[in-house]
Amino acid sequence: MQLTEREKSLFATLHEMKMEAGSHAPSVYMIRDRIPDLEIKVDACFLSNPYATDLFIERLGSDLIETGELRNVLEFYPSQNHHVAALLERTIHIDKQHIFVCNGAIEAIQAALHRFAGRRVGVILPTFSPYYEYARPDQEVVYYTLSRENDFALDVDDFIEFVVNNEIDTVCLINPNNPNGGYVPTEGMRKLLHAFEDLELVILDESFVDFAYEDEQKTRRSFATETVEMANVMLVKSMSKDFGIAGVRAGYAITSPERVNALVANGYLWNISGLTEFFFRLLAESEFHEAYAALRLRYLEEAGAFFDALGGVDGIHAYSTKANFCLVELDASIPIEILAPLLLIRYGVYVRDCRDKIGLEDGQYLRIAGRKDFENDLMLEALKNAVGACREVS
Amino acid sequence: MQLTEREKSLFATLHEMKMEAGSHAPSVYMIRDRIPDLEIKVDACFLSNPYATDLFIERLGSDLIETGELRNVLEFYPSQNHHVAALLERTIHIDKQHIFVCNGAIEAIQAALHRFAGRRVGVILPTFSPYYEYARPDQEVVYYTLSRENDFALDVDDFIEFVVNNEIDTVCLINPNNPNGGYVPTEGMRKLLHAFEDLELVILDESFVDFAYEDEQKTRRSFATETVEMANVMLVKSMSKDFGIAGVRAGYAITSPERVNALVANGYLWNISGLTEFFFRLLAESEFHEAYAALRLRYLEEAGAFFDALGGVDGIHAYSTKANFCLVELDASIPIEILAPLLLIRYGVYVRDCRDKIGLEDGQYLRIAGRKDFENDLMLEALKNAVGACREVS
Repeated sequence: MQLTEREKSLFATLHEMKMEAGSHAPSVYMIRDRIPDLEIKVDACFLSNPYATDLFIERLGSDLIETGELRNVLEFYPSQNHHVAALLERTIHIDKQHIFVCNGAIEAIQAALHRFAGRRVGVILPTFSPYYEYARPDQEVVYYTLSRENDFALDVDDFIEFVVNNEIDTVCLINPNNPNGGYVPTEGMRKLLHAFEDLELVILDESFVDFAYEDEQKTRRSFATETVEMANVMLVKSMSKDFGIAGVRAGYAITSPERVNALVANGYLWNISGLTEFFFRLLAESEFHEAYAALRLRYLEEAGAFFDALGGVDGIHAYSTKANFCLVELDASIPIEILAPLLLIRYGVYVRDCRDKIGLEDGQYLRIAGRKDFENDLMLEALKNAVGACREVS
Repeated sequence: MQLTEREKSLFATLHEMKMEAGSHAPSVYMIRDRIPDLEIKVDACFLSNPYATDLFIERLGSDLIETGELRNVLEFYPSQNHHVAALLERTIHIDKQHIFVCNGAIEAIQAALHRFAGRRVGVILPTFSPYYEYARPDQEVVYYTLSRENDFALDVDDFIEFVVNNEIDTVCLINPNNPNGGYVPTEGMRKLLHAFEDLELVILDESFVDFAYEDEQKTRRSFATETVEMANVMLVKSMSKDFGIAGVRAGYAITSPERVNALVANGYLWNISGLTEFFFRLLAESEFHEAYAALRLRYLEEAGAFFDALGGVDGIHAYSTKANFCLVELDASIPIEILAPLLLIRYGVYVRDCRDKIGLEDGQYLRIAGRKDFENDLMLEALKNAVGACREVS
């Protein structure tokens, strides 16, 4: 494979941007600012259901744009946290006193680590980096590493033993886990929560729970109802993934009324935007909910088929996933430092290079999100071609 | 005056809502939810330039809705804090390393009080309630009260002495002040900042600075350039007021690079929404800026005339203001507990009853924002009629 001069220069620009973006991928906006003529055809860094985005945009059009109501949503202050929690109560059937509405799940994660966590925070690697980045200076993060040989699956008993042996008082669980999509089924999760009931804080991040299921009907299984009375648990939920609205910033946490009140009284009274409030109003509608349920199933089916096909690409190993993305590992013959930027600049396919993730630094891992059917096809084709091109190099 | 049965029942509903809303006014949404058939004609609780809202909505229409770009703004993650700070650098001519972009100024206020403030926080009353509500449990808030007899103006020398005598290590200054609109001119502010240069933290809240001026050309005078090298100062700026976009949630703070980095590294990397980023992109455009400058002048002139006229209403005293609102005091013959709800339910005019503000509890103070010309006229008319009706009662 020959890189053109332009491609070489774009490789360097991308590298610079990544240095600036730290432990996260540069945003699509940032790439567009720096490389305006690069066409990004598929953003598969972005973990969301694009059909749900369609639904939201459609309702935004009919309810806010056509009616002229959009102005009010942007001009005036949104409601206070408790008022939006009351809207959410109808949707998730959890008493509003237990609900903290947030400007993206990340806000709840940061607040929980700063206000409710103890001194020794147990984090399972690989993970979503804020779980260790946002720790307070007086906190020690204790890492438990999932093993590649065990398909990055969590061994529940082994982890419980690790928490006890290491005198960990705060545990962060993401289920399904990001970035590998590993899933702890109901019985295992019950065992974990029971074993951890005397800890200061257990964060259970269910941001990807809409994509997991344990039966053929693909029934969504959240622990919200089971954890609501567990005073040390904070269940965290992003709406960016399942509803495909990361730019809106919407999430919630379920925890004890004491913890909810402590947050609302102290800095998080008006933390959401008018569009976030609009979204939670839609979510309280059964019509919206039913439309979403159908799109969830469609997306799950297409994503499942895509992940199966990924595993079939020569030179690529796909790890098992119950999320809407798949962690894949490249053969030694396919250098990730070539493949990842090549996919973007030659084929317009943006995937997540995982070398900045603790626990995956030395590997050849990409995280690839399922997108719409035609985008998945385009990614498969691009991946095959790019793999071929990389092999010519080596 | 006779209240109808319906009016009596609405009085009770409003009272309940206020009890729930705590130290803030119930939002227009909350009122609409509870009293769907009440028409709010003017929301003068809301402190904003409505002409600037028009400008933003127009650009939202042409740049995002007509182009279909709105979907991208809502679907994808916005850029990181530093990247948006770079956009703002072009607008405010402050090095981006000193800029922290926030989800409304309130986010910066809470973060500053929690992370950078000392143990004794000096707050000038009356004030914006988060300045005392968001104090940490280990902080003591020390109040300095402005005197009604002195037109609620700040006596700079007396306040400096108060800070020294009370061993205050953190000071919160709002200029112009909310809720009275009092303004400390340039020389006085310089004296304050100089006197406080050894404190842990000085928060200088310039959220209303676009409405203040010291010359006939109504030139905007911010302290951003002067404070940028003062490592203990955090200048805080809401965009909700001058740009009329409270529902978008946009603000920034100017402080030392160390403090900016401490925030961004620890919880505030992706705190803004896609629409907030869009707003900061507009702001970086000179065309948008010039259009805004003209609307600022128009609004200032109309608001000034309105405040003058308010002072002429029989039974009402208007305090001097350099903000876009006016604190007025009602005669003893006009009971505020009747006038404020009556204005809303009979005339559709929503003004801020200040009895929940520390320092104004026992008084008869309303805070009234300037709105569009025809709304100001409507308010004046309603106020005269409502005052007349109240006097019939007593």
